[in-house]
Amino acid sequence: VTREFRVVQYGLGAIGRMVTRALAERPDFQLVGVIDSNPEFQGLDAGAVAEIGRPLGMTVTGDPQKVLRAGIADVVLHCTGSSLPAVYPQLELCLRAGLNVVSTCEELFYPWRRHGDLARRLAALAETHGATLLGTGVNPGFVMDVLPLLVTNVCLNVERISVTRVLDAGTRRLPFQQKVGVGLSQGEFQRRHAEVGMGHVGLTESISLLADSLGWSLDTITNDIEPVLAEQSLSTQFLDVPEGQVKGIRQIAQGLSSGSPVITMRLEMAVDTVDPRDVIEIEGTPPLRLRIDGGVPGDPATVAALLNAVPGVVAARPGLLSPRDLPLPHWRVGKLMEAGANRA
Amino acid sequence: VTREFRVVQYGLGAIGRMVTRALAERPDFQLVGVIDSNPEFQGLDAGAVAEIGRPLGMTVTGDPQKVLRAGIADVVLHCTGSSLPAVYPQLELCLRAGLNVVSTCEELFYPWRRHGDLARRLAALAETHGATLLGTGVNPGFVMDVLPLLVTNVCLNVERISVTRVLDAGTRRLPFQQKVGVGLSQGEFQRRHAEVGMGHVGLTESISLLADSLGWSLDTITNDIEPVLAEQSLSTQFLDVPEGQVKGIRQIAQGLSSGSPVITMRLEMAVDTVDPRDVIEIEGTPPLRLRIDGGVPGDPATVAALLNAVPGVVAARPGLLSPRDLPLPHWRVGKLMEAGANRA
Repeated sequence: VTREFRVVQYGLGAIGRMVTRALAERPDFQLVGVIDSNPEFQGLDAGAVAEIGRPLGMTVTGDPQKVLRAGIADVVLHCTGSSLPAVYPQLELCLRAGLNVVSTCEELFYPWRRHGDLARRLAALAETHGATLLGTGVNPGFVMDVLPLLVTNVCLNVERISVTRVLDAGTRRLPFQQKVGVGLSQGEFQRRHAEVGMGHVGLTESISLLADSLGWSLDTITNDIEPVLAEQSLSTQFLDVPEGQVKGIRQIAQGLSSGSPVITMRLEMAVDTVDPRDVIEIEGTPPLRLRIDGGVPGDPATVAALLNAVPGVVAARPGLLSPRDLPLPHWRVGKLMEAGANRA
Repeated sequence: VTREFRVVQYGLGAIGRMVTRALAERPDFQLVGVIDSNPEFQGLDAGAVAEIGRPLGMTVTGDPQKVLRAGIADVVLHCTGSSLPAVYPQLELCLRAGLNVVSTCEELFYPWRRHGDLARRLAALAETHGATLLGTGVNPGFVMDVLPLLVTNVCLNVERISVTRVLDAGTRRLPFQQKVGVGLSQGEFQRRHAEVGMGHVGLTESISLLADSLGWSLDTITNDIEPVLAEQSLSTQFLDVPEGQVKGIRQIAQGLSSGSPVITMRLEMAVDTVDPRDVIEIEGTPPLRLRIDGGVPGDPATVAALLNAVPGVVAARPGLLSPRDLPLPHWRVGKLMEAGANRA
């Protein structure tokens, strides 16, 4: 018997370590290489870094070139950052080795609008080297784009799409709470927003994929961010928030066509949240309203979307694709293969 | 300018007439032939039969061979019946002419379990003649199979899937109300069920697609039907239901693995229904619960799924496919093409 998919894990941040833990439980995935730039991780077994409680027999290396060579893996699972310009050299290395890549990089999900030039270069590299490149996850990748896009399948006409995602940052990791500004003063929030930009990366990509898929041409995509303030003092597992300070972020992005919003994304990420949920509303024929109580939990869903994309990506044509280009992605039971059956 | 998709409409029953009305409003579809076996329709303009209020310039014919010849259309929209053995000769005619087909035939949606032999014959015909054959609609085709399958994409593990669809038959056509037994006595219901079988066709197909896609092997698929009784006298637009008589049907189908239900479909179709809805529940990691208030309206959604499948089917490889084999189906704006652009 053998394992169906040989995988290089590229990046051992919070999501990368979760991916590694998930891989270790799957009989169909075999880890064949682990890359991370953190010097503290290098030379350690990936099982130790991912806190699995047993070695995985794979040592973390800081030098991607030692790992990324033709034929070493069926796919690279890439989890190093949100910014496409920042991760571009890493993706280029993978593609030049002819390796398929599934990445959590939010700006890679549908990069044609924000980073058209990089997107064209990645597409050309992928095609030249016979590799498939896909960005996916829960958001972007599912709740605010792929799922609403599928829902339009039962519509005769679509006039407007709204997606609201309200998530309880109180259940999330410390870096996530920090990312959404929990505990900052309003001044600190605005200062940090002016300096490095606050808010979720990916709404522009979700809106672009929807608009292009539906055949809507957009004038512009707006993106507005404001802090959500604590009405009374509160504490999370990690942080204290005095009354009037920031407990999270509210972000509204809109795609405008002829000056009017046709796609609206509302994303609220705060602690002490009432009624976390995902809601998709289609104005059209028929109108439809779909609700996921509690909302799709971000971290496990992103890890799942990454692993569940692998069979489709391995079978796909070369190129820079998005999930809508592939057969319907879904979970399936991980099974050991009969020896040789996977290399047919 | 020209239209992107040339279409033969095969069948002018209630759904076929709705499809024809939808086609007449779309700038991207051109009707190039209309077939129906009803002698009252033959020789009439399709626009008259579909009650569009204007002629479409296409006369209904009862002889499919007059219409179905190689190259006449990009796709045949086939809406004549639920039973695959009954419609098989019609599909064969389309495929032998090398024509792609999108069909509402419920048993065609995923015919491999119930009609394996016919499925293999259709697949071989489609491949031989370079045509793509797809069964789709709202149910089967969306609510109880394709949508829950996509939802598993954000799961690391799936243990059980339940889908509940409760629809208000009071808002539906007379034939639909009759199909679900509205106004029958309990004895008439049971007699008719014993003679011709009551209930929705398609749950076995939905369960089979889910199980095969998830890699679950099923021992058996059960299908239980009972009448829903009126607790007080009531009337629909078409029918009267005295107290204690039948106001609809409740159907439960289950896929069993090692004796235990892993897929459960509950379908309730009755008049005087409280809280019509579609609910998808995934037991797994993470557990997920998705709800569509009011439920997806059956008739327009089926017409939409049919039309929205066309671009994917025209571009697909030949064969007998199901929606999970194609890129994500979705609505898109219908536009006139520049002349020649569609035949690239």
